[in-house]
Amino acid sequence: MASYPKSLLALVEGLKKLPGVGRKTAERFAFKILDWPQKDIAFLAATLYQLTDSIKKCNQCGCLQESSSCFFCSKPDLEPILCVVAYAKDVYPIEHTRLYHGYYHVLGCLISPLEGKTAADLAVDLLLSRITSLAISEVILALDSTLAGDTTSLYLQERLKDKNMKITKLASGVPLGSSLDFIDEGTLSQAFHGRQMVL
Amino acid sequence: MASYPKSLLALVEGLKKLPGVGRKTAERFAFKILDWPQKDIAFLAATLYQLTDSIKKCNQCGCLQESSSCFFCSKPDLEPILCVVAYAKDVYPIEHTRLYHGYYHVLGCLISPLEGKTAADLAVDLLLSRITSLAISEVILALDSTLAGDTTSLYLQERLKDKNMKITKLASGVPLGSSLDFIDEGTLSQAFHGRQMVL
Repeated sequence: MASYPKSLLALVEGLKKLPGVGRKTAERFAFKILDWPQKDIAFLAATLYQLTDSIKKCNQCGCLQESSSCFFCSKPDLEPILCVVAYAKDVYPIEHTRLYHGYYHVLGCLISPLEGKTAADLAVDLLLSRITSLAISEVILALDSTLAGDTTSLYLQERLKDKNMKITKLASGVPLGSSLDFIDEGTLSQAFHGRQMVL
Repeated sequence: MASYPKSLLALVEGLKKLPGVGRKTAERFAFKILDWPQKDIAFLAATLYQLTDSIKKCNQCGCLQESSSCFFCSKPDLEPILCVVAYAKDVYPIEHTRLYHGYYHVLGCLISPLEGKTAADLAVDLLLSRITSLAISEVILALDSTLAGDTTSLYLQERLKDKNMKITKLASGVPLGSSLDFIDEGTLSQAFHGRQMVL
């Protein structure tokens, strides 16, 4: 019985590591890649090779860093506000709002015992020392609204409470464009709690 | 406003070419790849680089070919039957049935004017010359049960009809394990037409 060529199997194995990609999808991807022009395949391969060389993480804020200085830490006129996020990718949607002009702090993970992540993995000492050295007046906890995100928020509140500064978290409520029919009770309760004066 | 590092953007562009992968999914893949160990990234890159060198297409049957001789054309004791499929990947599920012991012929595409594929792209001359040189007694048209597949089947039937050999196509009917509730009328009609004597 015929099996796939070895290098095709290797490609399938590599692609299977992508999130949400199983064997069938990886095979579909691999056969599609076989049909690509040679230059497209070489481009993807070269990009992967360069990736870890060209992208570092800032040793202060933890954001992705392309050049020798961190784009996020070296912006001019930063307000003394610190936005704490879980992952480096979370910074970009916040930037796209154009509303926030403070510092960032990437935790790198959330507290999640099932994934083997505990409070020790958060490196809170670095966070505390940055809060002091940057003279931060407000910390915004911008974490996922999930069990892991809420646990991490609560833990950080506990660790930061004596720091004599504002600690805020993102508002919970009805997402724009969604109908109340499709909102779960928990979200609706939060939206009631956080209701805002309009007149 | 911050944008992604250049090499991350390049990776997203590369991954967006995968079937069914849009910008959001490509970004999710790219950020996941950033978290991979360096050796996993290098493995995927190396596999991609080697891909086109290590996998050729047999110039006779069109199947994927790893070594200098084609696995499918050089099997011992091949029956003088030719199974016509659309793409090289279609050969593997047929092989997995372990029922078929004849030759293969990969068309490379189906007739589909919307995708710019016409009868001229099927290279029927090569198919005809193989049928003669291999003294084929039956051609099995194993094409998709879609508009493009049926069109191509009809076209090939027309081109092969004077060849004094059997021309068959795969049976249409109810897929194993499925309930009649979920079968469309067209499939059910085909299943009635092709009903088989059991007693």
